[in-house]
Amino acid sequence: MIRVTVWNEYRHEKLSKGIAAIYPEGIHGAIAKYLREEPDMEVRTATLDEPEHGLTDEVLDNTDVLIWWGHMAHHEVSDEIVKKVQNRVLRGMGLIALHSAHASKVFTRLMGTSGSLKWREADDNERVWVVEPGHPIAEGLGEYFELEREEMYGERFDVPAPDTLVFISWFKGGEVFRSGCCYYRGHGKVFYFRPGHESFPTFHNPSVIRVIKNAVRWAKPVNRLEKITFPNVPPLEK
Amino acid sequence: MIRVTVWNEYRHEKLSKGIAAIYPEGIHGAIAKYLREEPDMEVRTATLDEPEHGLTDEVLDNTDVLIWWGHMAHHEVSDEIVKKVQNRVLRGMGLIALHSAHASKVFTRLMGTSGSLKWREADDNERVWVVEPGHPIAEGLGEYFELEREEMYGERFDVPAPDTLVFISWFKGGEVFRSGCCYYRGHGKVFYFRPGHESFPTFHNPSVIRVIKNAVRWAKPVNRLEKITFPNVPPLEK
Amino acid sequence: MIRVTVWNEYRHEKLSKGIAAIYPEGIHGAIAKYLREEPDMEVRTATLDEPEHGLTDEVLDNTDVLIWWGHMAHHEVSDEIVKKVQNRVLRGMGLIALHSAHASKVFTRLMGTSGSLKWREADDNERVWVVEPGHPIAEGLGEYFELEREEMYGERFDVPAPDTLVFISWFKGGEVFRSGCCYYRGHGKVFYFRPGHESFPTFHNPSVIRVIKNAVRWAKPVNRLEKITFPNVPPLEK
Amino acid sequence: MIRVTVWNEYRHEKLSKGIAAIYPEGIHGAIAKYLREEPDMEVRTATLDEPEHGLTDEVLDNTDVLIWWGHMAHHEVSDEIVKKVQNRVLRGMGLIALHSAHASKVFTRLMGTSGSLKWREADDNERVWVVEPGHPIAEGLGEYFELEREEMYGERFDVPAPDTLVFISWFKGGEVFRSGCCYYRGHGKVFYFRPGHESFPTFHNPSVIRVIKNAVRWAKPVNRLEKITFPNVPPLEK
Repeated sequence: MIRVTVWNEYRHEKLSKGIAAIYPEGIHGAIAKYLREEPDMEVRTATLDEPEHGLTDEVLDNTDVLIWWGHMAHHEVSDEIVKKVQNRVLRGMGLIALHSAHASKVFTRLMGTSGSLKWREADDNERVWVVEPGHPIAEGLGEYFELEREEMYGERFDVPAPDTLVFISWFKGGEVFRSGCCYYRGHGKVFYFRPGHESFPTFHNPSVIRVIKNAVRWAKPVNRLEKITFPNVPPLEK
Repeated sequence: MIRVTVWNEYRHEKLSKGIAAIYPEGIHGAIAKYLREEPDMEVRTATLDEPEHGLTDEVLDNTDVLIWWGHMAHHEVSDEIVKKVQNRVLRGMGLIALHSAHASKVFTRLMGTSGSLKWREADDNERVWVVEPGHPIAEGLGEYFELEREEMYGERFDVPAPDTLVFISWFKGGEVFRSGCCYYRGHGKVFYFRPGHESFPTFHNPSVIRVIKNAVRWAKPVNRLEKITFPNVPPLEK
Repeated sequence: MIRVTVWNEYRHEKLSKGIAAIYPEGIHGAIAKYLREEPDMEVRTATLDEPEHGLTDEVLDNTDVLIWWGHMAHHEVSDEIVKKVQNRVLRGMGLIALHSAHASKVFTRLMGTSGSLKWREADDNERVWVVEPGHPIAEGLGEYFELEREEMYGERFDVPAPDTLVFISWFKGGEVFRSGCCYYRGHGKVFYFRPGHESFPTFHNPSVIRVIKNAVRWAKPVNRLEKITFPNVPPLEK
Repeated sequence: MIRVTVWNEYRHEKLSKGIAAIYPEGIHGAIAKYLREEPDMEVRTATLDEPEHGLTDEVLDNTDVLIWWGHMAHHEVSDEIVKKVQNRVLRGMGLIALHSAHASKVFTRLMGTSGSLKWREADDNERVWVVEPGHPIAEGLGEYFELEREEMYGERFDVPAPDTLVFISWFKGGEVFRSGCCYYRGHGKVFYFRPGHESFPTFHNPSVIRVIKNAVRWAKPVNRLEKITFPNVPPLEK
């Protein structure tokens, strides 16, 4: 069983009727619903306005993979929780950062870079090309998939070069974007996935859901670390 | 079911009583026996002196992951078979190259480098350190594992920098070696694993067997390519 | 002084008046002319139809960086010369593979992959985005540069994931391409650069020439290897 | 001219007569002295106890490459300065983090990981093996170099897999370490180099100095960014 926690800022859905119409249970609710179709996944959700943003020690102790969607309230996420999440990832927890999480504290702290990029809210279409078809996150996707309407994100994207680059996006307006980026960090794994603007039904798209499901399986911990230490050790050889 | 074919040169075992005593069914036989303990693996073997080296189209059509051990007879492997194996890897088949396969035609053709290294047959002990503990091939291994007696392989190892470096070996004589190297190649995956000298019982070591089992699961195809083509394509956008 | 040899197949220019009009001295002649503007570069050329394709031992002994353009006659390049060039790269020589060299024997042998891709001869425009602006090959280029007319190359491009990905191209027809790829191979370095179709004046474009000049400086040898060996070595420690 | 600022905590040298005897001008003084031998380098120093730790805007405005040595007082470095240095690196400045800087705020902030490792103060000898001989930081070093006495640092080292791994260290006590790690971060470059314990004359060792000089040239900015922004952009294509 992979224990997944889907975290969402959950503000846009409350502020906009249009967005609420697309995601009546919130973005977290939509993603959780699809993940629950999988027999090997156990899913809970957490949101910004819950105590400790819903990420208590008890929740984190029982999370194998954390999915993160945030946008307008990045600055409201407490530094203490950010530090905890970073620590958990370094100790083995998987993290899937979606779309506007490129600028979240959690993601930028783990990357060490700004997450800056170009953007445009428009009716660009996006074509997501698979460039590493042997990677498990690309399983079952074909050569590319398309999103009829998405916000544009363009290079240069300020992230470390991914350990594996799985997807590159093409946008009608003339831009490209490294839209599926895998990172090993500490004992954990991080996957950044570009699509997912709140005003489009991206998280109902079968290819997008397939990517997230694949990513959950890729990101699950294989070895956990009890505690981060800097041990003074005796020699193993005389 | 992951369909594994364990390929072995199978010459040392016939020429040396000492080696035959360690591997009475051949190195391929030992590895196959251990892999057959796993319910998700279906295992066959193939050897150099069989027709087409045991790697007929029918066998390759039914192989998800090919394991390769060769040493004294690299030059006897036919170029046609090498070309076929390379083509299969690029189309999705996994390849696990063991120890002296560093200089095999199959491995060097897929790497584009010479596979050169320093070596010493001696009673060096080897300590294999895990440097990427979040990688599935490192699952269940702890911080390091030891091999009391192994042949030494030392840097510089002439391979492309791996997509993921999982292990680094320490040798008593003063050398280090990148001993667990993961590569994406085409639609397939290649794992090079250093230990496995024919005159030591390395392939009976539980950590070594664990690595090979982990590697089989990592290397299994996720997307297969029917045929390698260079298609002339019409525009997707007008 | 960086000693550069610009190698060209030099067939299209002889067969087509249109191409000859763009490159009256051949593609090699155009590139050589621009490189000769640089005080730190010493430039010679070589072509397919010269004896040993112009790549005698004497020439290779005096080459720090080899630039390669080939297309319609890849198969006419002798395997012996390919082997020599591969050996020289592994011993430290730089190689810059341009455009259709993606399918050349020299490049595919060094990569271990097929170099396959999608293509279209059309009046697509290409926009080359810089994704690693700290890399020396990106020096002085700005965020992107454009080529008004180029042949399209589209993913998936069958190459190993580059050690550093410097450029990604956008094409009007809906495709993307990893168009600037850096590789360490042996003691040498390889740079693949996408633009350069024979029927367009790409090699007169100032940004393209800037990239090639930057790449020459990046690819120059820093440590050379006399000979590839597999030495049996005594322990460094007792 | 490459403008280098050598930053040192400069505490050990004041507290210990033994250390002061090895580095009478401080570690920064020793490194600066050697770098000043190079005609293409302009060198200044800065230390923790100066106002703003010696890293005023004016100093940072005139720094191409910052070298960092810190150990016992990592926590005394102000968060504001750390943020400034991170920002400068992302905008193009080079950073060379030496030895115990593995746990400095500046380095861990840029890496996103803890920098944890094993250590032992002992009379271990260290052998630094070159694994990427084509990289400019390896220029002129041979196959390995030795340090007769050094503190031991052992894996697992909690850093992101480097973009290029140049060195791996062997220690007599049985450990290995990725001791030369190159990273692209933003428009800048970061090099982590392991040796350099304060109580040994490591920064008088010719190979160590050669590495630092090579690293300065590698890390110098090639493209600078005025300011980190997240621009809303119009389409480049209609």
